[in-house]
Amino acid sequence: MEALVLEEAKRISLRPFSLPQVVGPRDVRIKIHTVGICGSDIHYYQHGRIGPFVVNEPMVLGHEASGTVVEVGEDVKHLKTGDRVCMEPGVPDMESRASREGLYNLDPKVRFWATPPVHGCLAPYVVHPAAFTYKLPDNVSFAEGAIVEPLSIGLQAAKKAAIKPGDVAVILGAGTIGMMCALAALAGGCSRAIVCDLVPEKLDLIGGVQGVTAVNIRERRVLDVVRELTDGWGANIVFEASGNEKAFDGIVDLLCPGGCLVLVGMPQHAIPLDVVAVQIKEARIESVFRYANIFPRAIQLIASGKLDVKPFISRTFPFAEGIKAFEEAASGVPTDVKVQIVLEE
Amino acid sequence: MEALVLEEAKRISLRPFSLPQVVGPRDVRIKIHTVGICGSDIHYYQHGRIGPFVVNEPMVLGHEASGTVVEVGEDVKHLKTGDRVCMEPGVPDMESRASREGLYNLDPKVRFWATPPVHGCLAPYVVHPAAFTYKLPDNVSFAEGAIVEPLSIGLQAAKKAAIKPGDVAVILGAGTIGMMCALAALAGGCSRAIVCDLVPEKLDLIGGVQGVTAVNIRERRVLDVVRELTDGWGANIVFEASGNEKAFDGIVDLLCPGGCLVLVGMPQHAIPLDVVAVQIKEARIESVFRYANIFPRAIQLIASGKLDVKPFISRTFPFAEGIKAFEEAASGVPTDVKVQIVLEE
Amino acid sequence: MEALVLEEAKRISLRPFSLPQVVGPRDVRIKIHTVGICGSDIHYYQHGRIGPFVVNEPMVLGHEASGTVVEVGEDVKHLKTGDRVCMEPGVPDMESRASREGLYNLDPKVRFWATPPVHGCLAPYVVHPAAFTYKLPDNVSFAEGAIVEPLSIGLQAAKKAAIKPGDVAVILGAGTIGMMCALAALAGGCSRAIVCDLVPEKLDLIGGVQGVTAVNIRERRVLDVVRELTDGWGANIVFEASGNEKAFDGIVDLLCPGGCLVLVGMPQHAIPLDVVAVQIKEARIESVFRYANIFPRAIQLIASGKLDVKPFISRTFPFAEGIKAFEEAASGVPTDVKVQIVLEE
Amino acid sequence: MEALVLEEAKRISLRPFSLPQVVGPRDVRIKIHTVGICGSDIHYYQHGRIGPFVVNEPMVLGHEASGTVVEVGEDVKHLKTGDRVCMEPGVPDMESRASREGLYNLDPKVRFWATPPVHGCLAPYVVHPAAFTYKLPDNVSFAEGAIVEPLSIGLQAAKKAAIKPGDVAVILGAGTIGMMCALAALAGGCSRAIVCDLVPEKLDLIGGVQGVTAVNIRERRVLDVVRELTDGWGANIVFEASGNEKAFDGIVDLLCPGGCLVLVGMPQHAIPLDVVAVQIKEARIESVFRYANIFPRAIQLIASGKLDVKPFISRTFPFAEGIKAFEEAASGVPTDVKVQIVLEE
Repeated sequence: MEALVLEEAKRISLRPFSLPQVVGPRDVRIKIHTVGICGSDIHYYQHGRIGPFVVNEPMVLGHEASGTVVEVGEDVKHLKTGDRVCMEPGVPDMESRASREGLYNLDPKVRFWATPPVHGCLAPYVVHPAAFTYKLPDNVSFAEGAIVEPLSIGLQAAKKAAIKPGDVAVILGAGTIGMMCALAALAGGCSRAIVCDLVPEKLDLIGGVQGVTAVNIRERRVLDVVRELTDGWGANIVFEASGNEKAFDGIVDLLCPGGCLVLVGMPQHAIPLDVVAVQIKEARIESVFRYANIFPRAIQLIASGKLDVKPFISRTFPFAEGIKAFEEAASGVPTDVKVQIVLEE
Repeated sequence: MEALVLEEAKRISLRPFSLPQVVGPRDVRIKIHTVGICGSDIHYYQHGRIGPFVVNEPMVLGHEASGTVVEVGEDVKHLKTGDRVCMEPGVPDMESRASREGLYNLDPKVRFWATPPVHGCLAPYVVHPAAFTYKLPDNVSFAEGAIVEPLSIGLQAAKKAAIKPGDVAVILGAGTIGMMCALAALAGGCSRAIVCDLVPEKLDLIGGVQGVTAVNIRERRVLDVVRELTDGWGANIVFEASGNEKAFDGIVDLLCPGGCLVLVGMPQHAIPLDVVAVQIKEARIESVFRYANIFPRAIQLIASGKLDVKPFISRTFPFAEGIKAFEEAASGVPTDVKVQIVLEE
Repeated sequence: MEALVLEEAKRISLRPFSLPQVVGPRDVRIKIHTVGICGSDIHYYQHGRIGPFVVNEPMVLGHEASGTVVEVGEDVKHLKTGDRVCMEPGVPDMESRASREGLYNLDPKVRFWATPPVHGCLAPYVVHPAAFTYKLPDNVSFAEGAIVEPLSIGLQAAKKAAIKPGDVAVILGAGTIGMMCALAALAGGCSRAIVCDLVPEKLDLIGGVQGVTAVNIRERRVLDVVRELTDGWGANIVFEASGNEKAFDGIVDLLCPGGCLVLVGMPQHAIPLDVVAVQIKEARIESVFRYANIFPRAIQLIASGKLDVKPFISRTFPFAEGIKAFEEAASGVPTDVKVQIVLEE
Repeated sequence: MEALVLEEAKRISLRPFSLPQVVGPRDVRIKIHTVGICGSDIHYYQHGRIGPFVVNEPMVLGHEASGTVVEVGEDVKHLKTGDRVCMEPGVPDMESRASREGLYNLDPKVRFWATPPVHGCLAPYVVHPAAFTYKLPDNVSFAEGAIVEPLSIGLQAAKKAAIKPGDVAVILGAGTIGMMCALAALAGGCSRAIVCDLVPEKLDLIGGVQGVTAVNIRERRVLDVVRELTDGWGANIVFEASGNEKAFDGIVDLLCPGGCLVLVGMPQHAIPLDVVAVQIKEARIESVFRYANIFPRAIQLIASGKLDVKPFISRTFPFAEGIKAFEEAASGVPTDVKVQIVLEE
């Protein structure tokens, strides 16, 4: 069995690698079909680490995956061989206090694919707990199944925002996560998503979605657009999805009284927060760390046709060209949103 | 000035009638363009009363209205002559305790158009508080403006449900309000709306909306459909919009654990509630009475293109044929959702 | 090892009985100290069944317990031998969908002590999952530890109510659960708890708690008391804790606009619900089924001195007199709130 | 009529001053009894301004007041002459959008006592809207009535926190507002309030309240105390009530997963926020600006005996010594929490 292995920073191999294949009573074994490349995969590829997580030994990459169940543990009821599925890449200890509270994403013991020292899923077969493996309806493709993971971050942000029907949202940053936030905000109840970025190609793409107003911040002030579209009241929600410190400058001014700022992007340094500006609006600030109980929601939204992720799957590479796929994804082509690798055609 | 006046049960006149036209400092005077006929208008027409509200004197009908501002009180800032607008028909005492709490719809002193002894707006000109008069964007027609009122009931129900992105909703009853609930549920974050009724014409119409599964309860059990579409988990939300006692039979079984039942329809008698069934699901039950702070949300959703009310405006009559419009609306044509009267072309 | 065994309806033995004593890696073994007698224990004793749960074979009784850890599984980190603890009697499948959502009490596979065919804990030693075993602080006695379970039902009700500071609550029914609701409501943020019952002894006891207004419904109308204490606004919350159908008559009238009714008591039959009365108040109805994530909260409230359960522990019997304890508890002495059995002195 | 007038920074007079005394149909006229001195009064006294609010003309001070109704407007129903009352010092435009949404404290047009150019209430008689005048029960003194205003800030913070029963709270800063937050947190459902400060006198005072753990941060690390009292889980809520930039250092570490930080204190400059630390906890941040719909809650909590403000009324001065009262209050005596001026004995 060959896998796509990050040997060390800047060096990937497609080479024989054995992942554990023992199927426990509550596990399933999955033949992997499609795996998306995430910004974190690229970051490990380029730097060999993300913060405290360091690649000290060769690690299989990939955590955005779909595939087909090929073996089922004896206690598994909701899946059977042949089911097309996608997988939640983080496996918590479900008896931890955070998990018992419904916050399993915050369990410090979560084992997350392609986060050292845990291997990812860019390999022909993986074993995974059935509880975190979700069946895909017939009308959801493997490609769509493999984009459920990044979409779930946007949906977690939308859930935290507690959108009320018709809310106006601003999304700062039109990277992959910003786009997923925009789709999630609209699917989750917003009437409009005002998406702000500098890159025309990205704005053109997301601007094609019904309900999106794309704003190039080189050309217009976001605050002016917000005021115009809300009769001066302000946006109900701002999703900060750029992680760029500059985006925080005046960010609270975009909000209406009682509005909500959702922290999605991860800035490298502390950002200055104008507490009094927050207070005068009685703003609420929410934050997201991955997602919990979101995969079934993402699948439902894709299956019902309410949320269309297909335009955001930019390019596809066969597994044999997996290294090239990483090089391309890392090169930052402005029209790329999601690059995927297909293991099985 | 002529108005459409309910003289007594079963007798409407189009005849001279003077409504007060004095414009206070916080009021606007509006030239009425379009008025929708509501089930309550028809009920007053047919029965001369709704519960404790009795038509003892001739009363101008109509409360779903749009028009054009023709005069503006001296303290009004957000509207000007020529603005196209729609109006919230209930005017509360904003200093009441309920209003201060943000629940102005629950203020017992609300004065509501076409609810005895308060006159409605089926007349060429009305005066209304500017605070409850909302500007229509250029791309929202008068017809759409006049359907904001019934849509707002659906949106209030959707707001009360506290939809999480991707929730699956069931709507019991495909009358006008049931249809508005379905549109509101989908616009408000649901992935699917399973709409249940007996009338094929109504199911055909609402079934054409992306995300709706129309179920004729003569042909299929709702519970079976829900289980199939939710992998056995149950619906997150059930909107009871029929007011039919039979709809309550087994209603809690449709819900997932922790799900929410929203009471929208108004049954004539008390319904039997299986408390233990509610408890085993730890279900939440919400209820709606008209709406508060919803008009701007409804207008945003129509303006952004996210919610399309046009298919639900069934027929239009000129003011001169207003009596005929009422007779038609009262006759219960199965393809009629909303019948409107146009005063100014 | 002897246990208190319900042989069949109306027949209890204190006799040798072996419960499994194998300690798994995530389990602890506990020497039981105190066990409270619950209404459900008495109901099984008197009737041999509760609804669909039938005592077909001899079953060890008891589920409100405290004790001392005497053995610890190899993966257990948060407990050690000698820790004084109390135990959550329901053990869910933590990988079920309900559990993942934080609703582990709603998992249909919950195994709950002394609910056929699962044995209870009225025995010298039991083995239990460490995740559902909670350490007692030094200043919380075994007797208090054993009352955490019924208190948790009250606290679950208070959590569901989403109390705002200073809310006024009504509690219908001053049985054990009603009293626990009153304590929980006050500890959970209410300014007042208006507790209503017919039994003077019970009203006298709960009336001694700061913040409680005890109302004998033979002497005063609850609605009058509520109006007087809320300047006519109504109660923010009503906890229905009697399970008595009569209590539902006019229950919504007690609420303020936007108020909340919490269904705690379990009526034997469906109750008639006046839907329109609920709607005019836009009332919310919540319901509880046992509790989830409440034990640590109950323990903190007792330990901090904010909530005093001691007056509600009415009588104590040694294990040798366990049968008599049940007979006494079943006899319905009006001054009894909680009767407890002590296994180890 | 004499009033306590701030002529300019550092100069107060007790001198004849006429405030408007015309009683509109929805107003009441009140004979002032007690007025507390607030930090903002002192700040105007010392600096002649707070941010953009500048004392350009002589201004009557005072906004924490109680008194007796002496005249009632013709439309006022809930008050009558002789009623003992306290008053909400901010009067919004109830028809503004913020007010309609229930956020009347965020209406930019609020007229707030003793905020330039609006006069305060340190005068024998004032006229005030009846809707913002609240009757005091017989067992609530004028002194208690006059402390409802600062207590309401703490209660607004507690309401925003959405306390669940048994939550553990940390309060950073034991100034008047910090103490009010501690009382509000405990009354609002917390089991414990860990109050942190440097001043022993203040810690001694608040430490005397049941449920408070007072921590002198010169002696112990707050994080250590939190871990010890929460078995390492963290505090559910942190109220930042110091406004001191240093308090924000490591503030998120105090929280449990999913915990809430409430911004009450107003730092002079932007503070650095570690966004990633917030995200890893999925923390929520709430903020408060004065209060809305809180006065009735504060009064209920005092009247029911659940919350005792009396220990925090430190010293009382007669009106004739009003200038001295200000000098004393401004001198920062460590044992002073609330200094009050009594106009009528």
